[in-house]
Amino acid sequence: MADGRTFRTEDRRKRARQNGVVQPLLTDLYQITMAYAYWKSGKINDTAVFDLYFRKNPFQGEFTIFAGLEECLKFFENFHYSDSDIEYLKQTLPQTIEPEFFVFLRQLTVEDVILSAIDEGSVAFPRIPLMRVEGPLIIVQLLETTMLTLVNYASLMATNAARYRLAAGKHISLLEFGLRRAQGPDGGLSASKYSYVGGFDGTSNVLAGKLYNIPVNGTHAHAYVTSFSDLSELKTKVLAHRSTGVLHDMLDLCTQWREKLAPLLSLPASEASDGELAAWISFAIAFPTGFMALVDTSGLLNFCAVAMALNDLDYRALGIRIDSGDLAYLSKLARSTFEKVAHQYNIPWFAKLKIVASNDINEDTILSLNEQGHKIDCFGIGTHLVTCQRQPALGGVYKMVEINGTPRIKLSQDVMKVTMPGKKTAYRLYGADGHALIDLLMRSVEPAPQVGQKVLCRHPFQESKRAYVIPTHVEPLYKVYWQNGKVCCHLPGLEEIREKVRTSLDSLRNDHKRNLNPTPYKVSVSDNLYHFIHELWLQNAPIGELS
Amino acid sequence: MADGRTFRTEDRRKRARQNGVVQPLLTDLYQITMAYAYWKSGKINDTAVFDLYFRKNPFQGEFTIFAGLEECLKFFENFHYSDSDIEYLKQTLPQTIEPEFFVFLRQLTVEDVILSAIDEGSVAFPRIPLMRVEGPLIIVQLLETTMLTLVNYASLMATNAARYRLAAGKHISLLEFGLRRAQGPDGGLSASKYSYVGGFDGTSNVLAGKLYNIPVNGTHAHAYVTSFSDLSELKTKVLAHRSTGVLHDMLDLCTQWREKLAPLLSLPASEASDGELAAWISFAIAFPTGFMALVDTSGLLNFCAVAMALNDLDYRALGIRIDSGDLAYLSKLARSTFEKVAHQYNIPWFAKLKIVASNDINEDTILSLNEQGHKIDCFGIGTHLVTCQRQPALGGVYKMVEINGTPRIKLSQDVMKVTMPGKKTAYRLYGADGHALIDLLMRSVEPAPQVGQKVLCRHPFQESKRAYVIPTHVEPLYKVYWQNGKVCCHLPGLEEIREKVRTSLDSLRNDHKRNLNPTPYKVSVSDNLYHFIHELWLQNAPIGELS
Repeated sequence: MADGRTFRTEDRRKRARQNGVVQPLLTDLYQITMAYAYWKSGKINDTAVFDLYFRKNPFQGEFTIFAGLEECLKFFENFHYSDSDIEYLKQTLPQTIEPEFFVFLRQLTVEDVILSAIDEGSVAFPRIPLMRVEGPLIIVQLLETTMLTLVNYASLMATNAARYRLAAGKHISLLEFGLRRAQGPDGGLSASKYSYVGGFDGTSNVLAGKLYNIPVNGTHAHAYVTSFSDLSELKTKVLAHRSTGVLHDMLDLCTQWREKLAPLLSLPASEASDGELAAWISFAIAFPTGFMALVDTSGLLNFCAVAMALNDLDYRALGIRIDSGDLAYLSKLARSTFEKVAHQYNIPWFAKLKIVASNDINEDTILSLNEQGHKIDCFGIGTHLVTCQRQPALGGVYKMVEINGTPRIKLSQDVMKVTMPGKKTAYRLYGADGHALIDLLMRSVEPAPQVGQKVLCRHPFQESKRAYVIPTHVEPLYKVYWQNGKVCCHLPGLEEIREKVRTSLDSLRNDHKRNLNPTPYKVSVSDNLYHFIHELWLQNAPIGELS
Repeated sequence: MADGRTFRTEDRRKRARQNGVVQPLLTDLYQITMAYAYWKSGKINDTAVFDLYFRKNPFQGEFTIFAGLEECLKFFENFHYSDSDIEYLKQTLPQTIEPEFFVFLRQLTVEDVILSAIDEGSVAFPRIPLMRVEGPLIIVQLLETTMLTLVNYASLMATNAARYRLAAGKHISLLEFGLRRAQGPDGGLSASKYSYVGGFDGTSNVLAGKLYNIPVNGTHAHAYVTSFSDLSELKTKVLAHRSTGVLHDMLDLCTQWREKLAPLLSLPASEASDGELAAWISFAIAFPTGFMALVDTSGLLNFCAVAMALNDLDYRALGIRIDSGDLAYLSKLARSTFEKVAHQYNIPWFAKLKIVASNDINEDTILSLNEQGHKIDCFGIGTHLVTCQRQPALGGVYKMVEINGTPRIKLSQDVMKVTMPGKKTAYRLYGADGHALIDLLMRSVEPAPQVGQKVLCRHPFQESKRAYVIPTHVEPLYKVYWQNGKVCCHLPGLEEIREKVRTSLDSLRNDHKRNLNPTPYKVSVSDNLYHFIHELWLQNAPIGELS
């Protein structure tokens, strides 16, 4: 799993077994009824090209991160209808279906499918297909729903995570804490995985840590504090000094420190809770190298007492998590408290204790906290991140653009819904400053644009919107990832995909990425494709009659 | 799976294997770090009681449907840390952890846990626990995240589905079409399952149909029509008469009907698409008993032609699906078209052809369509249903209320977040008209309220809000579902749960269920519990100092 230098088929197969739900029956019934109708109509040798794309960036933003490619390939590798699937379909579909169809279905594979895709982790834009799927009509049609399920949420989640990363800045840690609010168990796993891809630093979800090798984080909940009511409940009080190994009484040390720190911090020791202190002493004894406490407004004195006792024994506390109240104010109060102690006892690292905040945080909360000059080092983000509250679905679609070599266009009164016909390819053109300028969709028969050569980029529907571009760099967007029944291209590991998100976003100008009124990134078609679209449009649109 | 009369352990185990992700590592890391700290602090024999509840009904509504119980029991039945889990935890947790803890974890079971819950499918209200979990502190704490994950989305989804059912009325079919927009593959499966529980009639998700025995539905997508461009492409043209078996040329019949119907419907045959007609003829030949077509604005003539040709051969078409445009207008146009044909040829069933609508529908769309007098028989609902767009997470929580027999209260400046301490039970009290009047939370040591006897019901926090209730029926809300390491209560099947949703909602007055400004349902505590809460509150709240 670690190096990402091989195609890692075995790893994928193993994970596919762990997640048994991604199988060909995870689809809409109409894909199977269509398959039968195609089969029955003699379209068994027809071939088709489908594009998978979305029409609008999510979250009122101007970019999307493409994710879910590896999951699609895992699905391809394991694609087959089992005997029990066939049995179920026989019972479920009308009795008029010819039995030979089930024989056909039973032996169906994705061997003859060719999948081209942009790199997983790339920024992507409306209308530029994320993937192109070519092959026998029936099988290519059957892949639709499952691929959309695998790509829509993965891309939405990675995009959401990337937006939180942009809002928080590069130097803040971001942790995903959303499992309990996720949309089902696997929703939670996908959320953890694609948050990491989008730029988060870790998750609380242990299974995600195990399956995907993502850093896991967590300390304790309020219940842990609640489970202690006073100091007499402490059964274990001693902790060994880290270097000398000599045992010390933590209870004594902590109560002494509490008395000593109370005047310095102007926090009366009499108001500090003994149950809380007992809980933290026990937690510090259990995790002397990893002491982090969930601190209510009133807990700073107890926390500092335990952290200083640990310091006496040559351990460094990690910090606190705050989960309620005014996070900007509390973080500043906690920081100044730590600074006071650091200064008084000349322990510089104490001033830098980590402050984690985790109460119902969303992108806007982070932006507002930024304005208030918060002193938070790390955000733990749950519900809003994993459910993508601001827009809980990416509207990815999968449309036929060619059949038996003939282009197809789908017309609609809503111009957003008109499809780009034919087999196409796409390039990203870069400007002199190194930023991505424009994406250019072309017919796949056209020659690629060349560095330093003027290329005409057109709006797909508005005739007068055109621009000449002289690219300093031309990036072909697609690679063939699946051919001849196997993965045929290097598949990056999770770390590499995560890095791709970072570099790909870096290549985008800031005005496309800002939270408020971002500038749309330009998506264009070649002059050739422009005429191709509009000729087909005229051919297919009936001429109305006015009367 | 079918009869729901047994505890069906084997069935659950089988499904648990199919969905491998629900295992003890599907949790937040802090549960495991807390487990270690409890263990290390000598709290191995401590016992605790936790309540699982939510604080606010979702979707600005005043009720919630409880779901996810069976999934929790399945999780209990399969609860164990595997060798590879232990290996992963050893690598992941700090090296200071004592190895004996892992031995303890490896052999941990839920044998000593007692789970009480309200019936799956019941209406439920804020603060009244959905479940009460008692047992050894460590294991009861370890169950938190997974149980929340299993209950939160299931309940949210069932509630959302029930709201769609209320909006649509009892006589409209509701189909779940959301797989491609669901939050991950398992999110899609859960959505299908709990939509059905909440009152939907079926799903497009084939795997959900197979796993949960839910009716599956679907016809064809636009791509099917796109795959045909004219009548010459039809390779199979004949269909056997249903009764006589005599073969007929469907192409001839359909083109004749199209010519015949054009003047009746004032729809010029010249404007009807030949590709579309070819597609539908082939689809009708494949599904003569199940012909349903995805009809654009312009497709009514072709559809009627094929349906009448099928009628000639003694088959009945099912109807149409409309997926774009003004659904109210189009449904009325389609209905009047069907009525015209029915009347002209004296085929009464033709007037009743099914009209399915499926374009980005949400609860408000349905209410608005109702006002416009739509003629739709069935809604297919995707994105908004499965992602619960209006509120994508239920904020269920899991709080300690008792430890070693001593009650615990969690205080908060936000009164919504104060916990109800101690081990409790709850009753639903019914009024003379048969409707549920109020839920009453009591200490579990109190005697149950009696039919016909006056009982004082109090607001948990507002002293002056009290009411005497004389119930005509008293329903104890909890049953013990898990004890001595096994399911110990009849577990209803999906159909039974679905029926429970129906009857439970019926027992609620309409004003609690309406979409606009619903009346809150009353949730109360007994006088005894009221005093118990407030004494503990005073004991635990520090007295401030003014200076």
